[in-house]
Amino acid sequence: MKPSIPKGTRDFIPSEVYKRKYIFSTIEEVYKKYGYQPIETPAMELLQTLTGKYGEEGDKLLFKVLNNGDYLAKANKEALNNLDSNALISSISKRGLRYDLTVPFARFVVMRQNDLTFPFKRYQIQPVWRADRPQKGRYQEFWQCDADVVGSDSLMYEAELIQILSEVFSSLNIKVRIKINNRKILYGIAEAFGIESRFMDMTIAIDKLDKIGKDGVVAEMTKREISEEAAIEIIDLIQAADLTRLVEVFEASDTGIKGIEETREIMTFLRGHEALDLLDIDMTLARGLNYYTGTILEVVADNEAYPDLVMGSLSGGGRYDNLTEVFGMKGNSGVGVSFGADRIYDVMDSLNLYPEEVAQELDILLVAFDKESHQYAFRVLGQLRSEGIRADLYPDPVKMKKQMKYAHARNVPYVGIIGSDEMNSGTVALKDMESGAQNKISVEEVINTIKK
Amino acid sequence: MKPSIPKGTRDFIPSEVYKRKYIFSTIEEVYKKYGYQPIETPAMELLQTLTGKYGEEGDKLLFKVLNNGDYLAKANKEALNNLDSNALISSISKRGLRYDLTVPFARFVVMRQNDLTFPFKRYQIQPVWRADRPQKGRYQEFWQCDADVVGSDSLMYEAELIQILSEVFSSLNIKVRIKINNRKILYGIAEAFGIESRFMDMTIAIDKLDKIGKDGVVAEMTKREISEEAAIEIIDLIQAADLTRLVEVFEASDTGIKGIEETREIMTFLRGHEALDLLDIDMTLARGLNYYTGTILEVVADNEAYPDLVMGSLSGGGRYDNLTEVFGMKGNSGVGVSFGADRIYDVMDSLNLYPEEVAQELDILLVAFDKESHQYAFRVLGQLRSEGIRADLYPDPVKMKKQMKYAHARNVPYVGIIGSDEMNSGTVALKDMESGAQNKISVEEVINTIKK
Repeated sequence: MKPSIPKGTRDFIPSEVYKRKYIFSTIEEVYKKYGYQPIETPAMELLQTLTGKYGEEGDKLLFKVLNNGDYLAKANKEALNNLDSNALISSISKRGLRYDLTVPFARFVVMRQNDLTFPFKRYQIQPVWRADRPQKGRYQEFWQCDADVVGSDSLMYEAELIQILSEVFSSLNIKVRIKINNRKILYGIAEAFGIESRFMDMTIAIDKLDKIGKDGVVAEMTKREISEEAAIEIIDLIQAADLTRLVEVFEASDTGIKGIEETREIMTFLRGHEALDLLDIDMTLARGLNYYTGTILEVVADNEAYPDLVMGSLSGGGRYDNLTEVFGMKGNSGVGVSFGADRIYDVMDSLNLYPEEVAQELDILLVAFDKESHQYAFRVLGQLRSEGIRADLYPDPVKMKKQMKYAHARNVPYVGIIGSDEMNSGTVALKDMESGAQNKISVEEVINTIKK
Repeated sequence: MKPSIPKGTRDFIPSEVYKRKYIFSTIEEVYKKYGYQPIETPAMELLQTLTGKYGEEGDKLLFKVLNNGDYLAKANKEALNNLDSNALISSISKRGLRYDLTVPFARFVVMRQNDLTFPFKRYQIQPVWRADRPQKGRYQEFWQCDADVVGSDSLMYEAELIQILSEVFSSLNIKVRIKINNRKILYGIAEAFGIESRFMDMTIAIDKLDKIGKDGVVAEMTKREISEEAAIEIIDLIQAADLTRLVEVFEASDTGIKGIEETREIMTFLRGHEALDLLDIDMTLARGLNYYTGTILEVVADNEAYPDLVMGSLSGGGRYDNLTEVFGMKGNSGVGVSFGADRIYDVMDSLNLYPEEVAQELDILLVAFDKESHQYAFRVLGQLRSEGIRADLYPDPVKMKKQMKYAHARNVPYVGIIGSDEMNSGTVALKDMESGAQNKISVEEVINTIKK
């Protein structure tokens, strides 16, 4: 049997894991510094928790787990007879793999509300699964890194999350721009044009402006019962992003005014902080997902710094006023951001941004000439490790050439050579693999050399 | 809808995640120091990879993932008509959740053999899933922390893994005993009694000695066509664990002699190391799983240190000579250990062994009296965070009592109080939450106080 893995999933070899861990731990350290606390939720959720939360398309992309034991005993007979795959599911599968971290988080907050202190600031770095058609850069298993605050509507948190976006990417050495908009501004526009009932259609169309251009968006909007005249004016308005003009437009919309005020207050919080320099007010930013109700955020690689890089958004987020409502807990405002680790990984890879230490997994490899010095080397190995040095020993005293080849493959900066001479004098012949220099020194000196 | 999660799965609140991360990172640091490298494999494996690897019982405990789309279109019609759940599976599900980390690792090694340098030392810390009946201390999703070496039969690695077992538990402050045996010794005994063909039955029966006692094991062995006389003698022999007597018994068994020699060489490697003091040769140790072929290891909490603690094994491992064979790669000897994070968690909890810092997630919380000082406090917050201090600010300048209540709930050692006085003088009223002392000092001084 030739082994393989499911399409759309990946194994990670050590050099890849190191890079991924570097990204995750950079994000995690920033989250911790900003006072966010980790939670974890199970990979499997009840399907009743997941279904209906991601639209019809999303439901299709859920991985469903077959009930154990004699699952056909309780199967829906009618669906079975009709070979109706969809209708059968709920009777043979009650669990699914989580599709994102937001819905499990909302479910968690409602279930554990008595164990938590609000405002509750949580981060969560875990894989999610989607049965999307696999293609370059899109996988069926991938990791999300989310931070959210629930239980406060303070705009301080929007400002803080923008700082987090700025700090994570600056730590990773990726130059970015952060786009900000507010769904209340978009709603205000809909109100001003008397098309509140078409608000969702409008935002979904605007969201495609980058891809299908102005004419495309106008066409999409007119198809959804928005007049062509209104559509053109709306696009002009959001492309101009002129706050003074908008305030005039919003004479009939308290919501629109509120959106502008919110954006201004966030900017006030950010005064003097470097994140402010990265921020672009972009009223064409709509973010399709419908649960955002206030500020929306999106991070893209800085086009000026990387003119050749073609890459979608690296991170996004926003404010949602009713996330836990679907699980029966009202009035719990939330705001959060999410980093897509895989896309960040691809950007870092193509720009070669990983620090050199990321690949350095071992400080020293010992090699020995014969069985007796090998036993002795094993004890030296123990001394090095007890000093916290990441050390290893080739497992057998075989030909030196073979052992040195292994040292090269493990990309080790030092090799410690031990024969009977070294054994009898309590020394190690330490070879610097970069310079090639070799010195017979005491174990103490080896420890000091590596530690500095 | 009242939210819930699948039985046998768990959410982890922050205080639990901190403890779990403490265990994982302790194990990971030791693995890294010993030169092991991380890999990750996907949660879903092809069912053809998993099925048949864990015995018939294991196959039943695999979580199977339903194929996406119109899965019934390709369903086995006969199985459908007969409502034969088992026969239907392979036609409607091609993926399953991984059951352990060993089989995915073997599959990985075979697939990626050209990317790896042998001996390949890997560690892997990931969740696994089993549809076991949930009960206290047993979950359907739990984490394993494995380290294995493949591609070498050097006994140095057995010695090294014993050192790892010793070091991990000493770092966690859990007193343990490490039991060692060798399947070759058990096989030698089977040979000496002419019951090689009953070897598996013998080891499975011996494995239950702790639970069902000598009489129970004899009964089990006689049921499996081993004579009562032989059964009694075998149990006497392994309970005595007298190497000299065994060498006599093994006159007819080269394998048995080899088992004794291996154990002795491992002890030689460990000479002078503290791990040797924890090691007990225990010939009643058999470890049911049938892929071990040499040394077998098991760690239990030290009975003398914790007479009241009732707890199964905390870790185990051993040598297997043919792990990758089932995937078509022969002659690749492996040896490894695995830590069960959940059981270790329970032991640490019941013995209260977590260091105090584990629960300390935040260094300081700022609180503000009014809107203006709140804006100023947000800037002070930025200064603290830019110094690497884990700092937070209550989101609104509400009543001080409410803000202080939040500070207590977050278990924070310092609170920085900021009103107009502090704002105008560029200071913070720093309150030490343990002593209750409060001092008005500069932001610089706050930073220095927290950093020391």
